[in-house]
Amino acid sequence: MQAEIITIGDEILIGQIVDTNSAFLGKEFNKIGVSIYQITSVQDDKNHILKALKEAEGNADIIIVTGGLGPTKDDITKHTICEYFNDVLVEDKAVLENVERIFSNHKSPLLTVNKHQALVPSKSKVLMNHNGTAPGMWLEKNGKVFVSLPGVPLEMKALITEQVIPKLRAQFSFPYIMHKTILTYGLGESALAERIEEWEDNLPSFIKLAYLPSLGRVRLRLSAKGTDQIIVGDEVQRQVNLLLPQIEDVFVGYEEDQSLEALIGRRLSEMGKTLAVAESCTGGLITQSFTANAGASAFFKGGLVPYATESKVKILGISEAIINEHSVVSKAVAEAMATNVRALFDSDYAISTTGNAGPSKGDSDAEVGTVWIAVATKDKVISEVFNFGKHRENVIGRATNKAFSMLQKEILKKK
Amino acid sequence: MQAEIITIGDEILIGQIVDTNSAFLGKEFNKIGVSIYQITSVQDDKNHILKALKEAEGNADIIIVTGGLGPTKDDITKHTICEYFNDVLVEDKAVLENVERIFSNHKSPLLTVNKHQALVPSKSKVLMNHNGTAPGMWLEKNGKVFVSLPGVPLEMKALITEQVIPKLRAQFSFPYIMHKTILTYGLGESALAERIEEWEDNLPSFIKLAYLPSLGRVRLRLSAKGTDQIIVGDEVQRQVNLLLPQIEDVFVGYEEDQSLEALIGRRLSEMGKTLAVAESCTGGLITQSFTANAGASAFFKGGLVPYATESKVKILGISEAIINEHSVVSKAVAEAMATNVRALFDSDYAISTTGNAGPSKGDSDAEVGTVWIAVATKDKVISEVFNFGKHRENVIGRATNKAFSMLQKEILKKK
Repeated sequence: MQAEIITIGDEILIGQIVDTNSAFLGKEFNKIGVSIYQITSVQDDKNHILKALKEAEGNADIIIVTGGLGPTKDDITKHTICEYFNDVLVEDKAVLENVERIFSNHKSPLLTVNKHQALVPSKSKVLMNHNGTAPGMWLEKNGKVFVSLPGVPLEMKALITEQVIPKLRAQFSFPYIMHKTILTYGLGESALAERIEEWEDNLPSFIKLAYLPSLGRVRLRLSAKGTDQIIVGDEVQRQVNLLLPQIEDVFVGYEEDQSLEALIGRRLSEMGKTLAVAESCTGGLITQSFTANAGASAFFKGGLVPYATESKVKILGISEAIINEHSVVSKAVAEAMATNVRALFDSDYAISTTGNAGPSKGDSDAEVGTVWIAVATKDKVISEVFNFGKHRENVIGRATNKAFSMLQKEILKKK
Repeated sequence: MQAEIITIGDEILIGQIVDTNSAFLGKEFNKIGVSIYQITSVQDDKNHILKALKEAEGNADIIIVTGGLGPTKDDITKHTICEYFNDVLVEDKAVLENVERIFSNHKSPLLTVNKHQALVPSKSKVLMNHNGTAPGMWLEKNGKVFVSLPGVPLEMKALITEQVIPKLRAQFSFPYIMHKTILTYGLGESALAERIEEWEDNLPSFIKLAYLPSLGRVRLRLSAKGTDQIIVGDEVQRQVNLLLPQIEDVFVGYEEDQSLEALIGRRLSEMGKTLAVAESCTGGLITQSFTANAGASAFFKGGLVPYATESKVKILGISEAIINEHSVVSKAVAEAMATNVRALFDSDYAISTTGNAGPSKGDSDAEVGTVWIAVATKDKVISEVFNFGKHRENVIGRATNKAFSMLQKEILKKK
């Protein structure tokens, strides 16, 4: 069984927003065994939407439409779906009450356009939106399911997990889809492919392998599909067991649903250990990545971004003599930053970065792309130097990923 | 003239990566007067790619294909394009030299699969990729242009701006497209729409209006298209001049190509003023947003994320008495954080945040979603309290946006 995603909105096509909804939908549908055939982003234009609906109906069994359900004139999805189903709009009492409740909570006056949010196609089942005024709508045609959802990510996500997925599972039985992603660091995509070629060639036909290189890491994704969850799971595990000895030197871990920083955070929390961060060239990205996850306060003591060299001296207590002798981008400064920020926040572990993210040289003679990363524990400090190229965004991203992987290695040693 | 984007890769459809390339392409093409008809994301599957190419050829004049050009077996775009054009692959000497140079720079052994990167369709013009091994390929058919590019964002972006756009401009003449986006804060989408309804109804037909609500802000986007740049530009400006008096109380500024934080950074740099940040609940996002932009060191002194309450006391010098009396999420603590971090980093301006991003309550009794934000200058400190709802990601994002807009207001006062 396949689904197709249609995202509606000129803001996607002119590049004003990045469509993050589709990735969420792809993940959630794969979890229940439904693969996404195609994602199509179309304009706020009636004929274009009608054409996309027709094509999707030909490709897939489940059609998920997001966007274009706002109260303003540029939002035309609801009227267009009504036309596609040859239907009329009727007022839904429960939706109207929901709209009234939201406006009364916000102490905002209820306008006529807001009341129109309660109009839904008469053939649709309403999916109540508890986070906004636009309801989700569920329609069926020739055994196919059409679901129209608001484009606001928070509202769409809640409707999918709380209502759409349970309703689909109740109505259909799905095969089992499994993805297992192996994180590697240190070997290029093609060298990795050559090394594991024989293993790859012998994969059973229901397991597909993909290489996903990104910012210094290569992720290997195994995707398997079958009717029997146990057979699929066992075979994937057997293949992983065959693979691991061949990539031991570059194996970092598995990517579950969680990012590497979330895995580190969970592990530190379980161990009852804490972390502090001092970042110069990464500018707060390491800190922000850890605190983005709920529960960060269990292990994350804090972060310092001493961007100006003077603040490295004043706040972090790096001696001016060390900076003058070695320059601000150096092993000595990186290690002093990690050691001192660990002491400052009284944490068990600390990470530091100092480098030049570019595009021009800063308070140091270091080449653009040069980054020193250090990890400190109570007993010791280790550090390494890298060159992450000449593009600022890449340097920041790759240094952050590398810092996570260096920290993870230190933590795993304590196992 | 219209373009269509086809992004290829199972990783997009299973939600393993978010497609950010399409937004970049949408922006760049709009700048030269080419609108994007549709974005289609398809699987690493020959028949699916062939079908998408055929449909795109029917919809658009320029077809941009990204992804699937890697050296591994899951990458099939090149062979499929070859089939679509009824063509054969031939080795390109210049591409082979580029591949050899890259591998020699990385001191990696050159494998046969890497050499295959130099195979291109015989009918294609090569677009040399200076950042990677997979070349871009330019093909033409019945007056339509097909461009195949690697999916790695850095490589794709350089090829687009340095080669594809100049080549298109040399070959075609495009109409003029203009977008002007007005940032507002403080009024809901529908209330705003009602207030400016008369103005909206009187817009000329070549100007479209869209409402883009996001994390507390509503952006109003005017899109205009025409053959004469001066006529289009004048009319958009005339409409903006008519609109502004009606939205004076909620007008924040214009969104050019730059984000609000980039505008603030530019303005601070021009004024020769500096900034420091102390963030608790926003966890480094404010700091990271400023340092992500090149040139941040001209105005950004540094950031502190005193996540644990004890570090607010120890590093930022907030008195325990204040915390005990008012709690850590309070006006008094927010103002002391802003005042003290400004002094600590010796900056002209400072922002602070303290709140509870959820999902559970932290070191404070404050409701989930409560955030105090303060802005300090040398003479004074102001603060406000907000409730940004119960979803962690939203609370962090909305608090960050609100902090930017409070800081901007303070900076504009100094005009």
